[in-house]
Amino acid sequence: MPERSSLEDLWPAWCRRVDDYLERNLPLPEGQPGQLHTAMRYSSIGAGKRFRAALVYAAGTSLGAAEAALDVPACAVELVHAFSLVHDDLPAMDDDNLRRGKPTCHRAFDEATAILAGDALQTQAFEILASGLELSVTPSERLEMLALLARTSGAAGLAGGQAIDLQATTVDASLDTVERMHALKTGSLIRASVSLGALAASASAEILTTLDQFAQNLGLAYQVIDDVLDGTVDTPILGKDSGSDRDADKPTYLSILGEHDARQFAGKLHHSARQILTGAPFDTQLLLALARFTIERSH
Amino acid sequence: MPERSSLEDLWPAWCRRVDDYLERNLPLPEGQPGQLHTAMRYSSIGAGKRFRAALVYAAGTSLGAAEAALDVPACAVELVHAFSLVHDDLPAMDDDNLRRGKPTCHRAFDEATAILAGDALQTQAFEILASGLELSVTPSERLEMLALLARTSGAAGLAGGQAIDLQATTVDASLDTVERMHALKTGSLIRASVSLGALAASASAEILTTLDQFAQNLGLAYQVIDDVLDGTVDTPILGKDSGSDRDADKPTYLSILGEHDARQFAGKLHHSARQILTGAPFDTQLLLALARFTIERSH
Repeated sequence: MPERSSLEDLWPAWCRRVDDYLERNLPLPEGQPGQLHTAMRYSSIGAGKRFRAALVYAAGTSLGAAEAALDVPACAVELVHAFSLVHDDLPAMDDDNLRRGKPTCHRAFDEATAILAGDALQTQAFEILASGLELSVTPSERLEMLALLARTSGAAGLAGGQAIDLQATTVDASLDTVERMHALKTGSLIRASVSLGALAASASAEILTTLDQFAQNLGLAYQVIDDVLDGTVDTPILGKDSGSDRDADKPTYLSILGEHDARQFAGKLHHSARQILTGAPFDTQLLLALARFTIERSH
Repeated sequence: MPERSSLEDLWPAWCRRVDDYLERNLPLPEGQPGQLHTAMRYSSIGAGKRFRAALVYAAGTSLGAAEAALDVPACAVELVHAFSLVHDDLPAMDDDNLRRGKPTCHRAFDEATAILAGDALQTQAFEILASGLELSVTPSERLEMLALLARTSGAAGLAGGQAIDLQATTVDASLDTVERMHALKTGSLIRASVSLGALAASASAEILTTLDQFAQNLGLAYQVIDDVLDGTVDTPILGKDSGSDRDADKPTYLSILGEHDARQFAGKLHHSARQILTGAPFDTQLLLALARFTIERSH
């Protein structure tokens, strides 16, 4: 399977690019206030699958952009992702102790520092997208990318999805509620990652539409599998508290559909995602490999 | 005093413009998730002095911009200000009960909603600055405004200032620490407000420099008086918990200098701010009136 081995070569290099960029661009631990800077780095550098960054690099390089021109959007989506994890893990929210195999930010530091570190990680995403020189697009294209990331991060995206999540319990669990919650909480940033990669490559409106349809299916499949893994895999492998949705009486694809049907649903979404890219006027190998990873992953 | 009466006429109208714009552009309470949308509106519409918006309008109109072209930056700085207040008031931070004469966001709703509402208010600031059509500048100028607001809001601005504030107690109180904290926590957004108004009017680099020097003195004077008011005025007049810095054993200009010397220091800063605008090639009346308000205000 050549497509798989190709992604397997590239992905670790993309992870290193993200870490290198964040190392260079996040405020230094020696600077004041040192604890805030340290907490920002702790929560964003050197951990995580970098699935969203991989989507940026895969979409962008498939459309002809250089990897160096994709570092800014790749790091911007990872910063927004890190921000949302730090805040979602807080005691007033999901109250999680473990994230990416180490203590959550508020456990490693304190609650106030975790709130501020999350805040500043979000800000940093907009800052690099507004002024990062490596991104070689027109000012108008850059503004379009900024507007997209802002829509994705706020009330109509991550923050909105988390608010729905907090209100939802299995009592009112419908597939509609779960789908809407995940569309905002997980799907929106996965879609934005694909779009930002394409926008950084100055893609046409037609290609952007195709890729967004692909990303919608991919994002949903990713979340369905996330729910299955959260309910069936042990904490050490997952790197975060497993079973936390079940413990919190949260509706999930697993609780509503059961594992067999949930995996079958993810398989159908994967099939749709593949179909959408059939005949696309660019090399779809990396994106297809990422789609396969989405449903085959074990953590 | 014609300059004072002129500002007095304009300021209430600017407050209405900000509320109108936010009413139209914040997510509707009827939309889902309704509680998040309601909390965002609760914390940003219809309250507050709008001092930072007034700086945007005063700087911008003095340089020839139309008020309508200043609504976006004026609301962007007020959204960032509202975001920082909501998060600073949280139990893990300053644990305040009262803000702008009503219960703080986490008291009126709950802690999780307040964290998310603050997050989404910050995002909304970047969203309107990236895509608000009313702003009539070039894409490059808009990017410059976005980058400035991001620098102001993050680790090198509000978030950094709050982190220093949380670590500071009267034990290690030096005037240097207090000055650095306030330069980030309050001064940075006041400076950004003046600069954003000027950038929206496509001001020259020379005028931007002059205005920034003016704003640095103004921002520091504003904070010195804030410290004096916090320590000497009762809660009902202040609209927020008075004496909270003293209760938390925080160093302030009042605790270090005493009321007499603190007010004298503010007077000197006001004098410097006036001097900087002497001979400036535009009508400085509104900005001078705002500088006077800064040291004469009672809440």
